[in-house]
Amino acid sequence: MSNHFITIIGLAAAFCTTISFLPQAIKTIQTKNTSGISLSMYSLFSFGTLLWFLYGILTSDLPVSIANGITLVFACIILVYKVKYK
Amino acid sequence: MSNHFITIIGLAAAFCTTISFLPQAIKTIQTKNTSGISLSMYSLFSFGTLLWFLYGILTSDLPVSIANGITLVFACIILVYKVKYK
Repeated sequence: MSNHFITIIGLAAAFCTTISFLPQAIKTIQTKNTSGISLSMYSLFSFGTLLWFLYGILTSDLPVSIANGITLVFACIILVYKVKYK
Repeated sequence: MSNHFITIIGLAAAFCTTISFLPQAIKTIQTKNTSGISLSMYSLFSFGTLLWFLYGILTSDLPVSIANGITLVFACIILVYKVKYK
């Protein structure tokens, strides 16, 4: 399989997993319904995404920093709503 | 900063973001409460994680394959419950 095709799969993967938290953040902001959302998940996930963001900076890996920086914002919004409207 | 320390940050990041979906999967299985969970998020996220898994296999990157293979299982469980108990 060509390297070009493999790179496209990687970029598509990064796009999907990064942008996927946007509809969840929008839904949570609009409905304030967080009863089914796990506080443990968003605490661990936000912390992990922060570590990925730092890892990207420390290794000068711009795609890792940018993707995780964006995800971190979405995850923190959901986490704040979970804590506020549990 | 030493490379050793940076590697630990990366491993901790991978551990947190991978394992974070476990408490959400457990909560969803136990409560069947999926009203606050976004179908768009878990559809996009599961597809993205599948692409990361394939990307890891195609680039012979074992950590990427394993971490995303585990996350894919958790994400698919939550997605199936969301579709079944919406």
